[in-house]
Amino acid sequence: MTGRPIGVFDSGVGGLTVLRALQERLPRERFVYLGDTARLPYGTKSADTVVRYALQAADALVHASVKALIVACNTASAVALPAMSARHAALPVIGVVEPGAEAAAAASRSGMIAVIGTEATVRGGAYQRAIAARLPQAQIRAAACQLFVALAEEGWTDGPIARATAQRYLEPLFRDEGLAGAAAVPDTLVLGCTHFPMLRAVIREVIGPTVRIVDSAATTALAVERSLHERGLLSSSAAAAGLRLLATDGVARFAAVGTRFLGRSIQPHEVELVDL
Amino acid sequence: MTGRPIGVFDSGVGGLTVLRALQERLPRERFVYLGDTARLPYGTKSADTVVRYALQAADALVHASVKALIVACNTASAVALPAMSARHAALPVIGVVEPGAEAAAAASRSGMIAVIGTEATVRGGAYQRAIAARLPQAQIRAAACQLFVALAEEGWTDGPIARATAQRYLEPLFRDEGLAGAAAVPDTLVLGCTHFPMLRAVIREVIGPTVRIVDSAATTALAVERSLHERGLLSSSAAAAGLRLLATDGVARFAAVGTRFLGRSIQPHEVELVDL
Repeated sequence: MTGRPIGVFDSGVGGLTVLRALQERLPRERFVYLGDTARLPYGTKSADTVVRYALQAADALVHASVKALIVACNTASAVALPAMSARHAALPVIGVVEPGAEAAAAASRSGMIAVIGTEATVRGGAYQRAIAARLPQAQIRAAACQLFVALAEEGWTDGPIARATAQRYLEPLFRDEGLAGAAAVPDTLVLGCTHFPMLRAVIREVIGPTVRIVDSAATTALAVERSLHERGLLSSSAAAAGLRLLATDGVARFAAVGTRFLGRSIQPHEVELVDL
Repeated sequence: MTGRPIGVFDSGVGGLTVLRALQERLPRERFVYLGDTARLPYGTKSADTVVRYALQAADALVHASVKALIVACNTASAVALPAMSARHAALPVIGVVEPGAEAAAAASRSGMIAVIGTEATVRGGAYQRAIAARLPQAQIRAAACQLFVALAEEGWTDGPIARATAQRYLEPLFRDEGLAGAAAVPDTLVLGCTHFPMLRAVIREVIGPTVRIVDSAATTALAVERSLHERGLLSSSAAAAGLRLLATDGVARFAAVGTRFLGRSIQPHEVELVDL
């Protein structure tokens, strides 16, 4: 069982930022990454549809004999995690929302936290609930930043367009409303979409140096390590390390765009096309 | 037969710009519009996947007893039209690429034409081939403008971000390369994506007042009228006029975003959810 791979699921290539953090923290593990590129993006779809697609993806990874299911997609984590956990109750099923919320609650001093994500993630309110469960007095502001996804995929992650987009989305979140008894502005920002770490530099420029940026990738990797350790599922040999990349469409585009997200070159022949 | 509806298919809401042109030109017709919102966007998907999805959508419209199939989606027109025509040989099947190419060839004086579209449309080369078939001496420059789609859906169709994005995509297309014997810059620009007419004003600002902008919607409506007239399929009574809106996901988002594209208010209860 310990020699089995860890399954990582995302709607596309964004989850490769989470895979990267997992590989850094768990270098002895084998991974199978599945990007549902034929049906991305999930972030603008209804909850029912996201649940249906996520369950199909989970089945495919379980069929590949994974020892754990990591849901790297924020939208699927926010919307489909209970259904996936129920269907695969024997496996650890770990999303990015809970670790991200935990990190945000720990990072914030003032209790005022901003969350940005896709439309579906923000509308579903999963981050807001997960943060409130840990920090009941938290004041949370949330905003959907749909254009960040397109900017990250296009590779336009710096320069005036990225900066102006970040200003337009973020300045209202960090505006001092001057409410008596309320913190002035958030001291913590949760990047609630796997694409957003690609824009970290311009986001930092806009929000200034003091706001803490919480990116779920690193905290999720820590949660995965903890869960596998508790269950005695950590790989005992570095010889097992490896990676399989699966996509439901467009291996060439997966390789080209994925290279930026994974931070190392992916060749099209490394990506296997699968049908869900 | 003349009383049957005209089927209009698109990957999402963008095709509502084509529906609007069809309704203006053919006010006595009934229309059934199907937006495959569960699986949009098609523009970043592989040709095989686009063909598969387009055939399923065509089947659904034929099942609704349409007398003609209009493919409002540029990507599906560019990639899947032959397969759709072959499967439904008894019906007129009309895409937006051929009418758009015809209008571009007629509009250009210099023979130098710029085409912008999604990644899949530009990569597939359908506009380039269709223009060259009509104007063999044409010089064609093409570019994918993926971010325009996100800007149109977000409603950010004017202001500094839209303008800077238009500059970044269009200035290289309209740069004088100073080649001997070649026209200096294109005199015609084809908007090869249904989302792009939403950005017409900033596009016009960037390319200047003299370049002709060809938008497939109006020319497609003309081609549809001609084809139905030739086959004796035009509706004979205004009493039949009407519209059914079908979507494969997210009726609330379809209504909200679609309102901007159709140019009149759509209420969520007007949109029927269908499964393909």
